[in-house]
Amino acid sequence: MRSFLLCAVFMCVLPCSAQTTLRHGPVHELDIVGVMNQSVVDWNNGDLDAFASSYKNSPDILFIGRKISRGYAQMLAAYKTGYPTREKMGTLSFSQLEVQPLDASFATVTGNFHLERTAAGGGNADGYFLLVFEHTRQGWKIVRDDTTATTPTK
Amino acid sequence: MRSFLLCAVFMCVLPCSAQTTLRHGPVHELDIVGVMNQSVVDWNNGDLDAFASSYKNSPDILFIGRKISRGYAQMLAAYKTGYPTREKMGTLSFSQLEVQPLDASFATVTGNFHLERTAAGGGNADGYFLLVFEHTRQGWKIVRDDTTATTPTK
Repeated sequence: MRSFLLCAVFMCVLPCSAQTTLRHGPVHELDIVGVMNQSVVDWNNGDLDAFASSYKNSPDILFIGRKISRGYAQMLAAYKTGYPTREKMGTLSFSQLEVQPLDASFATVTGNFHLERTAAGGGNADGYFLLVFEHTRQGWKIVRDDTTATTPTK
Repeated sequence: MRSFLLCAVFMCVLPCSAQTTLRHGPVHELDIVGVMNQSVVDWNNGDLDAFASSYKNSPDILFIGRKISRGYAQMLAAYKTGYPTREKMGTLSFSQLEVQPLDASFATVTGNFHLERTAAGGGNADGYFLLVFEHTRQGWKIVRDDTTATTPTK
């Protein structure tokens, strides 16, 4: 179950084809969608270091599962352990993406993910998530990630 | 599965005995813990209307599951459908509660829940959650709720 959650936590990305609902004004939402689109491009290029840059580089960021994980360095290490090959990473896509600003500095993003993988890569996976984004000096970055898988993991 | 998620979404409460970690200053955290403590007292008194007042009374609040649910009125109706009797409500407790302020107006809360119930009431349940709180004119209120059950539902 632990691996299930870790797997789920670290699959929160966005495809270029995301179906997006924009609310409460277009400015921040489009910036945030841009960050997420880039992150899925990076994932699907097999570049975990680039993918991880969608998160704030801080020891305080949180990943919510049965246990709470925290910190950028730990996140990146877990990604690299969980997805050591291109085949394990597979191809990500996203649906029902919705950006909901909280104020000028924070917003939440909800949506569903789909990971297309070979059986050898671990098989397909699906789930949903709630993210909290912060507007940092480096742009919009994820600071909270609660992702839940709805398919059994291998 | 849908009922599983609905059930999980609507079990996010806090017991008086919560183990709490306070970070980034004590003021908002204690206010937020107070709101959550009151909500669990209300739940364990069987008072869903009072319990629901820990959420912002807005059509924009979000409950994250396989599908997104939104709105205070819909939430309260779902609670009353899912927990029609005192036995179905059971007794809630909470552990590993952690408040993480985002700024003066927003904070996240993470933790685990446990619902103690008779077999006839639906049996025990456990899970974890990420909440986003907003500092409103009526005090700190929940505006996002992503709760995941880790036990099978009946």
